[in-house]
Amino acid sequence: MSRGFFLTIEGGEGAGKTTILQGIADWLKTRGWDVVATREPGGIPIAEKIREVILDRGHTDMEARTEALLYAAARRQHLVQKVEPALAAGAAVLCDRFVDSSLAYQGHARGLGMEEVWSINRFAIGDLMPDLTLYLDVRPEVGLTRIRSAGGREINRLDLEDLSFHQKVREGYLLLAQRHPERIVTINAEQPPQQVLAQALEETEKRLKGFSHFRVK
Amino acid sequence: MSRGFFLTIEGGEGAGKTTILQGIADWLKTRGWDVVATREPGGIPIAEKIREVILDRGHTDMEARTEALLYAAARRQHLVQKVEPALAAGAAVLCDRFVDSSLAYQGHARGLGMEEVWSINRFAIGDLMPDLTLYLDVRPEVGLTRIRSAGGREINRLDLEDLSFHQKVREGYLLLAQRHPERIVTINAEQPPQQVLAQALEETEKRLKGFSHFRVK
Repeated sequence: MSRGFFLTIEGGEGAGKTTILQGIADWLKTRGWDVVATREPGGIPIAEKIREVILDRGHTDMEARTEALLYAAARRQHLVQKVEPALAAGAAVLCDRFVDSSLAYQGHARGLGMEEVWSINRFAIGDLMPDLTLYLDVRPEVGLTRIRSAGGREINRLDLEDLSFHQKVREGYLLLAQRHPERIVTINAEQPPQQVLAQALEETEKRLKGFSHFRVK
Repeated sequence: MSRGFFLTIEGGEGAGKTTILQGIADWLKTRGWDVVATREPGGIPIAEKIREVILDRGHTDMEARTEALLYAAARRQHLVQKVEPALAAGAAVLCDRFVDSSLAYQGHARGLGMEEVWSINRFAIGDLMPDLTLYLDVRPEVGLTRIRSAGGREINRLDLEDLSFHQKVREGYLLLAQRHPERIVTINAEQPPQQVLAQALEETEKRLKGFSHFRVK
C-alpha cells in the first residue's frame, strides 16, 4: 500500500502555525509532493458540526471530559474522510493541530491526565501517528499579544481562558516533546518567521531523508 | 454523602422502555422516593446539540467510532449536569438507555468491540454504574413492527438500519446480561405490558431490599 508523509504542527495560541504550515506546503510542492494542507475539522461537515458545539461561547458549562470526547470525535471523522485517503494516495498531509493538542490542552492544562486523554484518542486514531510533529514554542504572553494585536480572527471560547491555562498548555507540550523526541521537534517560535520557517524546513527535510516514499520531482 | 438509587432501562427499538420507565417512576413515588425520570440527552442543551449531530439523517457518512465518541460525550454531559446532582440529593434516577446501549449498538452491532467501546465510556462515566439495569428483551421483528404501526414518533437514522443490525443489537444485550448477572436483569418484553411492568417492579423491589438508602414513606 502506498503511503504518504504525515506532518502535524502544534503550538499554543498565536504561535504562528498557519504561516509555517503554508511555507512547508509550498516547499513540499516544489519537491514534487502532492500536498493536502488541513486542520481539524477540515471542511468535513460532521466534524464542522462537532466543532461548532465545542467552540460555542454559550457553552460555558461544558465539562472537560465532554470537550475531550468531542475533540476526539471530530478528529476521527476528519481522519477517516480526509487524512487517511490522502495518505493512501501518497500525498503529504500537513495538519494544523492533532492528537498532541488534546494531550496538552485537555490532558495537561485541564488536568484530566495525559494517559486518560490518550486512551480515548487511541480509540479515535488507531495506529495513525504523524511521521513528524513540529511544536512551535512561544510563551503565552507573547502568543496572546500577537492574536489580540492582529485582530484577524474572532475570539473563541478557548481564547478567553486566563493566562495560567495557556501556561499549562505550554508545559504540556514541553513534556510531550521531552517524552517523544523521536517524533516531536521543538522550534523556538519567538524568532522572526523566516527563521522559524527555515528551521521547520530543515527538520522536514531531515525527516524525509529517512523516508522511503520520498519523491524527487 | 447521601446517594440515591440509579436504575437504567435498556432494550432495542420498540421494546416499550418508555411505558415501563413511567410505571416504575409512579411506583417509586408512592414509596416515598424523589424520582428523576430521564433519558440521554435529557434536556441538557450541550447534550441535545450532540444528539442532533448523531441523529441527523443527512449524516450517512458518520463513521462508527465518531458515533461512539459522540454518544460518550453526550452521556458525560448529561451525567454531570443531571444524574450525579440528583443522586447526590438522594433521588431515584431512572434513565432510558445508558452505557449498555453503546456496548450493544456500537460495540457489538457495529463491530467496534465491546471492550474498546467500554474504554471510552469508562472515561465518560468514571465509576458511576447503575444499581440495577432492566433489559427489555424483544425480537427485533416484533419491536420494529410495533414502532412502524404506532407511527408515534419520527423515524430516525438508527431506525433505518436493516433487520440484521437490530438482531446484532439484541445479541449484544444478551451477552451483556450473561456477563453481568449481578447488575442486569432480562425481562421478556413480548409479554403484555402489565406483565412486563409487574416483573420490572418485582425486580426493582428486590434490588431495593438490599439497598441501604431505601426510604419508606
